[in-house]
Amino acid sequence: MNVFDNKESLRKSGRKISHDVYTPKMDAEEFRKRGKEMIDFVANYLENIDELKVFPQVEPGYLHKMISADPPIKPEEWDNIMNDVNSVIMPGITHWHHPHFHAYFPAANSYAAMCGDILSGGIGCIGFTWASSPACTELEVVMMDWLAKMLQLPKDFLSESGTGGGVIYNTCSEATFVALLAARNKAIEFRRKENLDEDQYTIMSKLVGYYSDQAHSSVERAGLLSMIKMREVKSIKRKMRGSVLQEMIKEDLENGFYPFYCVATLGTTGSCAFDSLDEIGPICEAHQIWLHVDAAYAGSALICQEYRHLLDGIEYAMSFVFNPHKWMLVNFDCSAVWFKDSRFVVETFTVDPVYLKHKKEGKCPDFRHWHIQLGRRFRSLKIWFVLRLYGVDGIQKYIRNHIKLAHLFEKLMLGDDRFEIVEEVTMGLVCFRLKGNNEINKELYSRIEGDGRIHIVTSEFSDTDTLYLRFAVCYQFATEDHVKYAYGTIIDITNQMDLCSDLFLEK
Amino acid sequence: MNVFDNKESLRKSGRKISHDVYTPKMDAEEFRKRGKEMIDFVANYLENIDELKVFPQVEPGYLHKMISADPPIKPEEWDNIMNDVNSVIMPGITHWHHPHFHAYFPAANSYAAMCGDILSGGIGCIGFTWASSPACTELEVVMMDWLAKMLQLPKDFLSESGTGGGVIYNTCSEATFVALLAARNKAIEFRRKENLDEDQYTIMSKLVGYYSDQAHSSVERAGLLSMIKMREVKSIKRKMRGSVLQEMIKEDLENGFYPFYCVATLGTTGSCAFDSLDEIGPICEAHQIWLHVDAAYAGSALICQEYRHLLDGIEYAMSFVFNPHKWMLVNFDCSAVWFKDSRFVVETFTVDPVYLKHKKEGKCPDFRHWHIQLGRRFRSLKIWFVLRLYGVDGIQKYIRNHIKLAHLFEKLMLGDDRFEIVEEVTMGLVCFRLKGNNEINKELYSRIEGDGRIHIVTSEFSDTDTLYLRFAVCYQFATEDHVKYAYGTIIDITNQMDLCSDLFLEK
Repeated sequence: MNVFDNKESLRKSGRKISHDVYTPKMDAEEFRKRGKEMIDFVANYLENIDELKVFPQVEPGYLHKMISADPPIKPEEWDNIMNDVNSVIMPGITHWHHPHFHAYFPAANSYAAMCGDILSGGIGCIGFTWASSPACTELEVVMMDWLAKMLQLPKDFLSESGTGGGVIYNTCSEATFVALLAARNKAIEFRRKENLDEDQYTIMSKLVGYYSDQAHSSVERAGLLSMIKMREVKSIKRKMRGSVLQEMIKEDLENGFYPFYCVATLGTTGSCAFDSLDEIGPICEAHQIWLHVDAAYAGSALICQEYRHLLDGIEYAMSFVFNPHKWMLVNFDCSAVWFKDSRFVVETFTVDPVYLKHKKEGKCPDFRHWHIQLGRRFRSLKIWFVLRLYGVDGIQKYIRNHIKLAHLFEKLMLGDDRFEIVEEVTMGLVCFRLKGNNEINKELYSRIEGDGRIHIVTSEFSDTDTLYLRFAVCYQFATEDHVKYAYGTIIDITNQMDLCSDLFLEK
Repeated sequence: MNVFDNKESLRKSGRKISHDVYTPKMDAEEFRKRGKEMIDFVANYLENIDELKVFPQVEPGYLHKMISADPPIKPEEWDNIMNDVNSVIMPGITHWHHPHFHAYFPAANSYAAMCGDILSGGIGCIGFTWASSPACTELEVVMMDWLAKMLQLPKDFLSESGTGGGVIYNTCSEATFVALLAARNKAIEFRRKENLDEDQYTIMSKLVGYYSDQAHSSVERAGLLSMIKMREVKSIKRKMRGSVLQEMIKEDLENGFYPFYCVATLGTTGSCAFDSLDEIGPICEAHQIWLHVDAAYAGSALICQEYRHLLDGIEYAMSFVFNPHKWMLVNFDCSAVWFKDSRFVVETFTVDPVYLKHKKEGKCPDFRHWHIQLGRRFRSLKIWFVLRLYGVDGIQKYIRNHIKLAHLFEKLMLGDDRFEIVEEVTMGLVCFRLKGNNEINKELYSRIEGDGRIHIVTSEFSDTDTLYLRFAVCYQFATEDHVKYAYGTIIDITNQMDLCSDLFLEK
């Protein structure tokens, strides 16, 4: 007898007795019905999503007018809720999985990951220690090793190294912040050994970290939250260059500061530019600076051999993060983080109450010591389902299709001499603009927003005060047709603009 | 025509073309089949879970011997994966939803929440700003108001107050930490106005926060991470008392420190003790100390009128958190956090890149400014499904059933004069021990672990060096039979012990 079979005879009387005092509106039988209806609902939604407007036509506050201001006292019927999903929720959704969604970066999703996620929800364990669900910790260790091998990360980052290893976080923002805290503690320990007279606050006041002006906003925020000075390194053609960094470090050392942390980005959010680790890494090493590498979006593509060179120099990094939940078909949240020496993190986080101790401590990681949160969901199941159902080959095909389509969009735009491409296209992002001033590009963007056929966002290069439009290939099943549709829409809208208006001719 | 219907005619050719370059192993049709099988798998698992051992019989490292050390290059078959779920994953699961799981605190789950979660995964939006999916932000605002009303929180915490409001976090640990950071910034701003000569590091070195020795380990950790002094307030009968706190504040002020933050706990993790907000609140107010209230577990019960008095004094709090993912049938993660004045948090977190700006800013909260992470899942759907399918009445019944059963367990244990109850039973937790020394209780616990019929954990009162056992009512469908089974198991095991052994007679 397999306990996972559905056998009427196995239903326990306990659940019947329980109904005297606590009657769930939805029991296992009802869940079989409603859960399957929800599967159909999701499949239908994703199959027919292009019937909907990609961006919602609602104003702030639309929703609270449509539902009760107070919670219901008595249970409601399932059908009422699903009716509201259709009439209240769906009109307010920005459809991230719409074929014409080209904003931000992709949010990963796949049917495989959703199946893994349903299983994770069903098991519903909280894996803060090994003992709280051994499979949850152990599968995560192996999945992080699988991903590390796909990326050809140095052996130091694999669990077999003893001190290194990977862990799933919620988001890159958390990784950048935690790496900073670990680096801070490492630096304070080092400085206190050098000079016992300085207390940790004096040392903190002298610590200085570095990030490119193209880095994600979470880096600046990590500095704000930790109250530690983070200096913006002026990029050259959107790259953080070793010479500039070296100069700043020299200046800070001369002024009595303690350089300790540097964030390099592989695939910036603004324009998908790549810092050169080969150039930055040796400088960090020479100054005992903790190098953290953020490859949130582009990291997924580095499993393709033709892009792996972008990771050259990763051996200088102390920590590395990328988001399978962006571009590797694993739905949010699943941010993959590695530390070369996890002890710095564990020591930063360890407090150890009795009710969380267990007999097998020390033999496997207790991930509660690896991050801010204590509770954690069984997220490695999603990675497991995706990697096995697609294989590395399948994921590479998916990535390469997106990149190929970005180059198609680039080629189409370059074929129209009213437009320029403002950043080298390496991954699935194309940064373009109308030649001319920012006003004309603001007008184009505003018209695209108003038109509603496609959804994109803008960004800017602050050094040259250049506003541009970002076209990201996001749709899981994207084809040339979708790219041509977006291109056609943009050209169509551009053709309706009076490009010779005085407003646009002013510089 | 409803786009959410499954209509063969609606399938778009785009997806067929796409298969030339990228063939997903699982398309919508396959998801209909496999997703529904997964629904059955989860329903069967939860219905028949009592056929399994509640705690797994595996040793650390068991899993990596059972699966490949390398990721698969080619896609695998679905059935292989599900076979491995049965043979590799399930043997390593601590079954949190087993009727005989009485460890830690409950991890909430319900079929209603799982349905909401599937929908959330299917929509797959990332709600960092209002524009990135208006429904995601707006439903969250209303759901947090619903919960606030159920708890009868002061109006300051409702969104209608303008400055107050709620937000969903991952865990309480994050809330405690973020509240500390906001309180830190508020204190630094205030102190700098008082004395311009002190820089932020000098002020930081003088800041001091307070927490009970019974508070959750995440409070001490928030201090470590923020590098801010947190002083442990010695509890009296597990309660943080105003007189002790007052004395410490006085002492710190005399020594030139700046008291700024205090965490009070409603329902401690160790023994479910309650700090008195009525006593602590006015002291915090008098000294401009940010009072943060952590009701992680017990918060759910405060929606029952007979327990609402435990929240008296909440009007003194600046922030409040409880976990619907513990005891309100909403599966992990869903931690509900309120701030009386969200501006302190928003100001702490705000960095503002162009690619996240949108036209409707300022009319609705952009939750990216409210926490460490940027990306966020559509979690309010889970709350919405649970509150509507159960109604407030249904949730109250569920809570009251658990508390009634805890009192039954208490009564049974008190009927055996070998045992003592070491903490007043208020919620669903009973703290008990064999009268005598810690050795005898260690032995009892070790035998319960070895026996495997039920799963509980221990804790200790460090002030009296008293080890005890924690019995938590966790099972969603718990009945008197389950409590009697646990009691019978403990008595059975106790009867097999030689309580007069020399080892146990030593104090």
